[in-house]
Amino acid sequence: MNHALRADGEQILRSALNVVQPDAAVRRTLQSFSPGGGRSLIVAIGKAAWQMARAAVDTLDQVDGGIVITKYGHSKGDIPGLLCLEAGHPVPDENSFSATRKALELTCGLSTDDTVIFLISGGGSALFELPLISGDELAHITRQLLARGADIVEINCIRKRLSMVKGGRFALHCAPARVLSIVLSDVLGDGLDSIASGPAYPDSCDSAMAKSIAEKYALELSDKARALLDVETPKTLDNVQTYINGSVRELCAAAAAAAAKLGYEPIYLTDRLSCEAREAGRFLSSIAQSHANSGKSLAFIAGGETVVHLTGSGLGGRNQELALAACEGIAGLKNAAVLSLGSDGTDGPTDAAGGYVDGDTLSALQGCRIELHEVLRDNDAYHALKAVGGLIITGPTGTNVNDVSIALLRSEKQTHIRTSSNIISAKLN
Amino acid sequence: MNHALRADGEQILRSALNVVQPDAAVRRTLQSFSPGGGRSLIVAIGKAAWQMARAAVDTLDQVDGGIVITKYGHSKGDIPGLLCLEAGHPVPDENSFSATRKALELTCGLSTDDTVIFLISGGGSALFELPLISGDELAHITRQLLARGADIVEINCIRKRLSMVKGGRFALHCAPARVLSIVLSDVLGDGLDSIASGPAYPDSCDSAMAKSIAEKYALELSDKARALLDVETPKTLDNVQTYINGSVRELCAAAAAAAAKLGYEPIYLTDRLSCEAREAGRFLSSIAQSHANSGKSLAFIAGGETVVHLTGSGLGGRNQELALAACEGIAGLKNAAVLSLGSDGTDGPTDAAGGYVDGDTLSALQGCRIELHEVLRDNDAYHALKAVGGLIITGPTGTNVNDVSIALLRSEKQTHIRTSSNIISAKLN
Repeated sequence: MNHALRADGEQILRSALNVVQPDAAVRRTLQSFSPGGGRSLIVAIGKAAWQMARAAVDTLDQVDGGIVITKYGHSKGDIPGLLCLEAGHPVPDENSFSATRKALELTCGLSTDDTVIFLISGGGSALFELPLISGDELAHITRQLLARGADIVEINCIRKRLSMVKGGRFALHCAPARVLSIVLSDVLGDGLDSIASGPAYPDSCDSAMAKSIAEKYALELSDKARALLDVETPKTLDNVQTYINGSVRELCAAAAAAAAKLGYEPIYLTDRLSCEAREAGRFLSSIAQSHANSGKSLAFIAGGETVVHLTGSGLGGRNQELALAACEGIAGLKNAAVLSLGSDGTDGPTDAAGGYVDGDTLSALQGCRIELHEVLRDNDAYHALKAVGGLIITGPTGTNVNDVSIALLRSEKQTHIRTSSNIISAKLN
Repeated sequence: MNHALRADGEQILRSALNVVQPDAAVRRTLQSFSPGGGRSLIVAIGKAAWQMARAAVDTLDQVDGGIVITKYGHSKGDIPGLLCLEAGHPVPDENSFSATRKALELTCGLSTDDTVIFLISGGGSALFELPLISGDELAHITRQLLARGADIVEINCIRKRLSMVKGGRFALHCAPARVLSIVLSDVLGDGLDSIASGPAYPDSCDSAMAKSIAEKYALELSDKARALLDVETPKTLDNVQTYINGSVRELCAAAAAAAAKLGYEPIYLTDRLSCEAREAGRFLSSIAQSHANSGKSLAFIAGGETVVHLTGSGLGGRNQELALAACEGIAGLKNAAVLSLGSDGTDGPTDAAGGYVDGDTLSALQGCRIELHEVLRDNDAYHALKAVGGLIITGPTGTNVNDVSIALLRSEKQTHIRTSSNIISAKLN
């Protein structure tokens, strides 16, 4: 492994993660907040819910109660006056439902003087959910939609209608109280009715669309579910103010700034990456290959959310798969690396946040008798990267603004600048 | 369609194609050529064979005969003193075999004073072939290798051993005559034993590798074919001088220069693009999307040779598929386009050289009731692009240095510079 490149890569990621922590943004937004004279309640949902709630409590003069609903392992302890709960993600579970019920109880019967500080981050779709049908039927409908090739917009259009909180219904429930919605975006392009399925944002889909989707995919639905497709979601919400804080664009900009500080010329490619993970990795590796002999130190930066179409049953995540697929194109290059990170610290169902490969990775894999193409066919990037020290492990980062992928080229002449590392440590077994 | 972007895109491609015409390069190389006192013979193979041979004849004082073997439709007429033949590509046919036999006869029994001017361009693998087994068995073996997932390196390792001319054997046949090999590269990284299967370059594979590949894929082979795997190809060739002229890197550089001339800031990404065509298109569209509001005129340039894994039975080529797949990501943008071109003028088994899409393309497709994802599933980019005027049609260009793909962003402020167009014309029906 090229330890200088690995260290540079980690430092860039660490700096970028520090910039997109939600704390400062929440504080900034709430500093200009003037309570309406009534109660101030906090409802925080998503993978960054705990951090956002902590920052809100620290900033506000008065908090009259609240609830935090985050993913298992993402709560960092008690927050005075708030109930901190953990629930299932990416699949909602009974704890999601019961926590959401508690949030609805807390915000029931509010008046115009009251305010709900609603802190939203990615993961909220699963964590903040109380279906109007049984959890089993909801799961069955979702499975049908996925199996028949529905896209995420279609899936959400149906699910919003089957939920007590999605598609603007939570804000409607809080009315006439004011809802101050602070959003940490993990959706490319920041579509507010998509982030956490938009509990406090007018729904852009209507019942007619929902019914045509049900017909298109010949969905099996109970009579109740079918009737619910007819019930319209809110199309306007005059009690909500929304602030977007943090996004993958900020993550990319922070990575670029950190790379520049280390002596790399940053080249910002995109914050909308959405193609197949492994092909994105190959594209980045072809960029690295072509610039390896330029004599320059370069950092090509692409943010977004790639996809993986499963062909196997191995362990991995989109960032690990992207990085692993890049190792072939840069094999043998002394000064090239490709790395990719999920900013929430969780890449797929693994304990890794992403992956790192460089010019030595392919031969290291071969040394372990690991055949790259077999691993990719089996979607088993985790074990392959683990074998060669290529996992990036951060634990929950407290933020969630999608992924950043970087192709790094390091010129021989580059001065080595290093500071101490603490967020990211690589498990090297 | 955005006609300004389309015109800019075509002008960039046209300028780039002009720069990578092989004529000037062949002339430059041959100007310093001093004949050995004996005969000077020309053997030109590949899609650019005619142009290269024409330039050679124009430059040399003395030509004592020669043969041109190019693809059907690629000969532009007689060249005095040379036999111009056309043959099958991408699958070799009887005309490939008989033309190659004529080339071997022409270069039989040469002396140390003689010189063979060997002009190589892409397509030569199919056009210049005389198998040591029957054409039927060769086709059967190739089909087995493809069906069992062998990669191109493995396929060529086997085929070189079954051929009278590949893997350095043509140069060996010409010995002791000098072989002056001028190569127009269509292979990423310019691997000289890969371009046209390296008839005049030492083979990097050996018999042991060939036999292990035959075993790996459990190839059905006749006794003769099996025996041929044991016959070694040349590992050194001391009668050959090789000059590489023209490559995809030059094509990219020329496109960058042409874009700059039109007021775009060129950003050179890679000359090694080799991922899935449609995913490369999506990556480029995500780049375009992220820079659409930058207020700058930008041209992101990627050269290489993408791949298409067929899932349908439609008509298209890798450049058309790349462009078409990009139309979704840039849909609705007023100032963004993605275009992709095969420099030989032939993209897949079509009469188009590539494709062009912009922010209007997706809605134009919808207007024609063409569903993008269905088209992509059926690999039918040709008909979809044809319906919306998105084909780029050049006819045979006379060169062959792989593909170039460009994401163009045009600022409102950009001055419109235009010159007359003649190489590229779009069929707009």
